[in-house]
Amino acid sequence: MTTNEKALLLHEKWNGKLEITSKSPVKSREDLSLAYTPGVAEPCKVIAENKEAAYQYTMKANTVAVISDGSAVLGLGNIGPYAAMPVMEGKAVLFKEFGGVNAIPICLDTQDTEELIRTITYLAPGFGGINLEDISAPRCFEIEERLKEILDIPVFHDDQHGTAIVVLAGIINALKVVKKKKEDCKVVVNGAGSAGVAITKLLVTYGFPNIIMCDKVGILSKNTKELNWMQQKMTEITNPFHETGTLADALKGADIFIGVSAPNIVTPEMVSSMNHDAILFAMANPVPEIMPDAAKAAGARVVGTGRSDFPNQVNNVVAFPGIFKGALEGRAVQITEEMKLAAAKAIASLVPDEELNEDNILPEAFNPKVAYLVAEAVKAHIKPVGQ
Amino acid sequence: MTTNEKALLLHEKWNGKLEITSKSPVKSREDLSLAYTPGVAEPCKVIAENKEAAYQYTMKANTVAVISDGSAVLGLGNIGPYAAMPVMEGKAVLFKEFGGVNAIPICLDTQDTEELIRTITYLAPGFGGINLEDISAPRCFEIEERLKEILDIPVFHDDQHGTAIVVLAGIINALKVVKKKKEDCKVVVNGAGSAGVAITKLLVTYGFPNIIMCDKVGILSKNTKELNWMQQKMTEITNPFHETGTLADALKGADIFIGVSAPNIVTPEMVSSMNHDAILFAMANPVPEIMPDAAKAAGARVVGTGRSDFPNQVNNVVAFPGIFKGALEGRAVQITEEMKLAAAKAIASLVPDEELNEDNILPEAFNPKVAYLVAEAVKAHIKPVGQ
Repeated sequence: MTTNEKALLLHEKWNGKLEITSKSPVKSREDLSLAYTPGVAEPCKVIAENKEAAYQYTMKANTVAVISDGSAVLGLGNIGPYAAMPVMEGKAVLFKEFGGVNAIPICLDTQDTEELIRTITYLAPGFGGINLEDISAPRCFEIEERLKEILDIPVFHDDQHGTAIVVLAGIINALKVVKKKKEDCKVVVNGAGSAGVAITKLLVTYGFPNIIMCDKVGILSKNTKELNWMQQKMTEITNPFHETGTLADALKGADIFIGVSAPNIVTPEMVSSMNHDAILFAMANPVPEIMPDAAKAAGARVVGTGRSDFPNQVNNVVAFPGIFKGALEGRAVQITEEMKLAAAKAIASLVPDEELNEDNILPEAFNPKVAYLVAEAVKAHIKPVGQ
Repeated sequence: MTTNEKALLLHEKWNGKLEITSKSPVKSREDLSLAYTPGVAEPCKVIAENKEAAYQYTMKANTVAVISDGSAVLGLGNIGPYAAMPVMEGKAVLFKEFGGVNAIPICLDTQDTEELIRTITYLAPGFGGINLEDISAPRCFEIEERLKEILDIPVFHDDQHGTAIVVLAGIINALKVVKKKKEDCKVVVNGAGSAGVAITKLLVTYGFPNIIMCDKVGILSKNTKELNWMQQKMTEITNPFHETGTLADALKGADIFIGVSAPNIVTPEMVSSMNHDAILFAMANPVPEIMPDAAKAAGARVVGTGRSDFPNQVNNVVAFPGIFKGALEGRAVQITEEMKLAAAKAIASLVPDEELNEDNILPEAFNPKVAYLVAEAVKAHIKPVGQ
């Protein structure tokens, strides 16, 4: 039986991958009077006086909503809220198993930006954080930005920032392997959607001076036509030397390629045209932009993909459970750039120098230290409210 | 320590009464590839082709949303969505412990009727049913009615229908005790809010010919001023003899009093003015409309309250877990009047004739047969889709 066949059978057997269980017993009338009426009125009254007490008496303290509109699910595209549900349930499983965070999958039956913002705003009281998932670009940028302004709990679009954090962690370690400095590197990011934009932003924040974004139209520059508002905005912080042309043109002399695009669009010739000791993260799923063996044969030194059957899997699961664990434990009101950088450095640090090599730049997802250390790094960068 | 003090301490210890747990293991890379990518794409693709498959591959089949806007919580009133959360968590605990149904508490940060309808419509894809809770009247009537029209899953306002079903069950058995027929009874329902309206409707459907509703204004008749639209509508199916006056006037000669109103507003004199073998359900919480001993001393035969420390507790927990269990198992698209009547009769039947007496008209909430039998009764009245 293939993995896919087995997965379908198991999903039928599970009939939902999550269960809602009770922490409070109700085996007697007394139990009932404590967990429900009349006793339950007491925490209600305290919270009615002081909203903050919700963190003390309800599940808000340790629960996030995993919210999607089903508009950009995995590689499947716009399959809608019903079909997105297995992914959101899976994400919630990972939140709990890797980060100890309760997560509730919510698939919304609208793809209107304003309606999504309003609905998620209304949903917020019971949750300590909002993890947005699989919402198409450029809508995802506006939805996240607006929600961050409105809400007093962390809002985090994992397809953007989770991916960006893990990519940065991998790049930090890959640079150690090839002994290059970020200041000297030319970076090409191919795919100007949610992940590509967030990766580029975080790499800029980290200090890469020369990043070129590409998309189907080729190199993104201030003169490129038909860019969406976010892509236009990205041309202001990328491509400092005003390069133009195709992806092949961009890759000439580049040190790092980051693909969040489409299968097989990088050729061995393009890799050969890159600088020595090239780093490639070819993360198109399930078929990468170039297969690792082909990239290596063409001269690449470090190759990562999104797949678990090759070395250097770039897997969000090393980031988001720990990030929300830290944000919730530290009562962060937002997940800031500082917290993202700290998370990336923490993830990179989980591969000790003596174990670091071109086929081992990222920690194993099942390493139980990952979420703990990421959470601690995030917590160390939470500013007290009001500062 | 009082129950209230203990409840507050326990709520702090629990820090949320629910936990979200995983049914699918993720201990290995293979587990991950089955519960999450790439395997999870398979059920997604099947559901994208056929929405109905969501019941097969996701938690929708056995999960309800417990939704409130915090506008009418317990006896506390409009305490808002944050303070309502402990009650909704408690309700979710009862759904699971008594009915085996997964329930997710959702407190919405709006009290605008249209916004609530829209938000709940958007939330529906992941859920097999919607349990509305603690939404103030008359908004609750419109919200429920409109959602029933829009959605293809059961929508049930428990404060209305759960209460009505248990009251009817109690009345069925109380009539056996006092050996009266519904056709001969005059019924007075005091309190024309969500519960009072729903109780009256269900008693009318069951066949009580003469029901009088009262509220702060006294007896509701077609000429009563300042009624809301639902109360006006209720005057069309109640008060067939066009009585007017106060609650005391209404109770003269009445056989049954049902109070969902305020403490201590029924006097012993009013009870004495009722027909012989009077039945009183005095359900104001925590202090009933009249205390059971005072009512009995004034001539009442059967007295029920909302409290667990008196006989005949009218407790929704014997209804809603089984009703949703049955509705979900039978894939009902609505909870119909027939299903409510069947549930009430099933609850009544759980007190065998030989155990039936004036202090034992309703089954014990902890009787494990309750939810099962209620569910079976509900399932027997589900019409196949399209009929």
